[in-house]
Amino acid sequence: MDAALDTDYAPLAAELRERDAVGLVVVGDRFDDDLRYCSRFSGPDRDHAFVLTPGSDGDGHTALCAPALFDEQARREFPGDAVRVERQGDPAGVRAAAALADAGHDSGTVLVPQGIPHDAAVYLEDAGYAVASTDALARARERKTDAEIDRLRRVQRAAIRGIRRAEAVLAEATVDAETDEVRWNGGVLSTERLRRQVNETLAAHGVRDAGNTVVGAGSTAADLHYTGTDVIRAGETVLLDVSPRGPDGYYGDVTRTFAVDPDGGWDRRAYLAVEAAREAALEEVAAGVPASTVHEEAAAELAAHGFRVDDDEVGFTHSTGHGVGVSLHEGPSLTADRELAAGNVLTIEPGVYDPDEGGVRLEDLIVVTESGFEFLGEYPFSLVPRERE
Amino acid sequence: MDAALDTDYAPLAAELRERDAVGLVVVGDRFDDDLRYCSRFSGPDRDHAFVLTPGSDGDGHTALCAPALFDEQARREFPGDAVRVERQGDPAGVRAAAALADAGHDSGTVLVPQGIPHDAAVYLEDAGYAVASTDALARARERKTDAEIDRLRRVQRAAIRGIRRAEAVLAEATVDAETDEVRWNGGVLSTERLRRQVNETLAAHGVRDAGNTVVGAGSTAADLHYTGTDVIRAGETVLLDVSPRGPDGYYGDVTRTFAVDPDGGWDRRAYLAVEAAREAALEEVAAGVPASTVHEEAAAELAAHGFRVDDDEVGFTHSTGHGVGVSLHEGPSLTADRELAAGNVLTIEPGVYDPDEGGVRLEDLIVVTESGFEFLGEYPFSLVPRERE
Repeated sequence: MDAALDTDYAPLAAELRERDAVGLVVVGDRFDDDLRYCSRFSGPDRDHAFVLTPGSDGDGHTALCAPALFDEQARREFPGDAVRVERQGDPAGVRAAAALADAGHDSGTVLVPQGIPHDAAVYLEDAGYAVASTDALARARERKTDAEIDRLRRVQRAAIRGIRRAEAVLAEATVDAETDEVRWNGGVLSTERLRRQVNETLAAHGVRDAGNTVVGAGSTAADLHYTGTDVIRAGETVLLDVSPRGPDGYYGDVTRTFAVDPDGGWDRRAYLAVEAAREAALEEVAAGVPASTVHEEAAAELAAHGFRVDDDEVGFTHSTGHGVGVSLHEGPSLTADRELAAGNVLTIEPGVYDPDEGGVRLEDLIVVTESGFEFLGEYPFSLVPRERE
Repeated sequence: MDAALDTDYAPLAAELRERDAVGLVVVGDRFDDDLRYCSRFSGPDRDHAFVLTPGSDGDGHTALCAPALFDEQARREFPGDAVRVERQGDPAGVRAAAALADAGHDSGTVLVPQGIPHDAAVYLEDAGYAVASTDALARARERKTDAEIDRLRRVQRAAIRGIRRAEAVLAEATVDAETDEVRWNGGVLSTERLRRQVNETLAAHGVRDAGNTVVGAGSTAADLHYTGTDVIRAGETVLLDVSPRGPDGYYGDVTRTFAVDPDGGWDRRAYLAVEAAREAALEEVAAGVPASTVHEEAAAELAAHGFRVDDDEVGFTHSTGHGVGVSLHEGPSLTADRELAAGNVLTIEPGVYDPDEGGVRLEDLIVVTESGFEFLGEYPFSLVPRERE
């Protein structure tokens, strides 16, 4: 077991001072990632609250208003100052207001994420506070600490094991010459059968698919987020996008594309183009580089290979990447007009799609450094699946 | 593959009429269960919106404001009338307001769940609507249709397979006479090793642990939501609470408690008491019965067996059960002052705990019928684990 994961509250405390606010309040359930980041608390599925107040030394004082039934777990997981379990019957917004009042503030500005539950915002207003939104949390989350990078790396390694399992299955698979169906282990191989092989591997390594293990084949490989069932056929591109969540809430994210008996037409052209775009994007990455430059270089490379980059369905239809942390998608986006910073953890994921042909995407997870980047887990790629030891 | 899962919008349309409202708006990301219920749409992790308007025939018209990148998936999954992908750059609340305006309503009352994101509520107000909260959705969700019960039953069956796997592992396990540690398959058996066996089994059956596969042993079995790592020792109660989520978003929920080489003391007394409480609770269940009666009967039985029912840490520390659907915990609660209705899907889960001894809980999932109940999946229980075929 690792030590509990700390959160650096200093940038949030600085935001309080800068905005002359009496507190920062985050309310949500276990599925709220801002709250997870602030509290490191993994349950329950009803609203609870995190409250940051300036504190006596300006360093900030942090409290978690937790459900009494989760008291022990909250004390185990919360790296902040105080777990409060009083006023169980009250809504989380009311309990947050009580924590603010106990800290000596019964009026003033309270900062909240813009998506805070409406009732919590109204309770805070009713208690006499002016509610103002802040993106300080989203900004703080973009710069990962070493401990966070360590978590991300471990989840990514498990994700890669999922890809490795899928590639092994595809390498073992055979083709039914009559029907063109791909067969494995005595039966037809569907996207769902392959997905379950991946998800079993994830579970065996202590991470979980978050209902989003994408496996598409042929036309459904051109659907960016396919989680349905399709028979896999010879020659079809099989696209696997594996993004599990680890026990501390951090995600991995890796994509590989294979084909059993590829015909060397569109799939081969697409693969070469995506490979080149990946290289072009990675070459740009470093602290201080405008994020959009990375995307533009990937797009230029794909365009140079003859793929469209201006359509919703055909060609390169999405951004080259996004930040990953306690949310699968967080800042910075690689289409954003701003500079990358050391500690940003990003996907690099060029891809091209054609509903008549299939889809090819390659995705890796990296951390930005001053001089470039490091991979958080590496795995080779080739259109034809291989047994790898 | 099953047909897409419908949602019965009639009770929501009725609520519009009753409250003289021009619309019902639900905003959230893929983790918002109200939105999942209304939309049946499983992605993405940024805000989108569901909008119900009265419609020309009073039956209601439903629209899903989806992200363009998920257009195909939204059209595949949404059982309502229209998928809207225009105004991608605008926040979900603004897009919802546009949908209301397009339906011919540029003012009036708009109903929302109380936890709607604050920014969405403010956008609706800025667009000229009066925002009022409704619990119509929570109420609608409590009455399951046959199609929903079918989904719940299937997830519960997979959850039971997870329990079965754990019981098989525990039945195979041996005890290290020197250390009292439980060993399995060449190594010490920890709660995390056992959890991974369960989670692998869930994944193999197409459902996923939602980060909440509880496995506790000894004192951590008395922690209601233990997801950490502990060595399992001879005689300790091993409590497994397995609540995976299926592909359509419905949960299962089942708990069993075992002990390898139990000493026949507290654990045996606790088991007998919980078994009796389970029987007593089940005996009460039927449409029309006050929910709290079920809880009170279970509590009375545990008290009669000498266990406390009035403390936060020792004895019976929680409710006898809760509703299960697209949320793991939803209405009705078995401590609520209201009547059960046919179609309610409930856990029955009495348990007793003592941090010095361990914890024993038995949990099953049932659907309430006019005359009683039916189990959604059955599995035997015994303190000593057995190989079951």
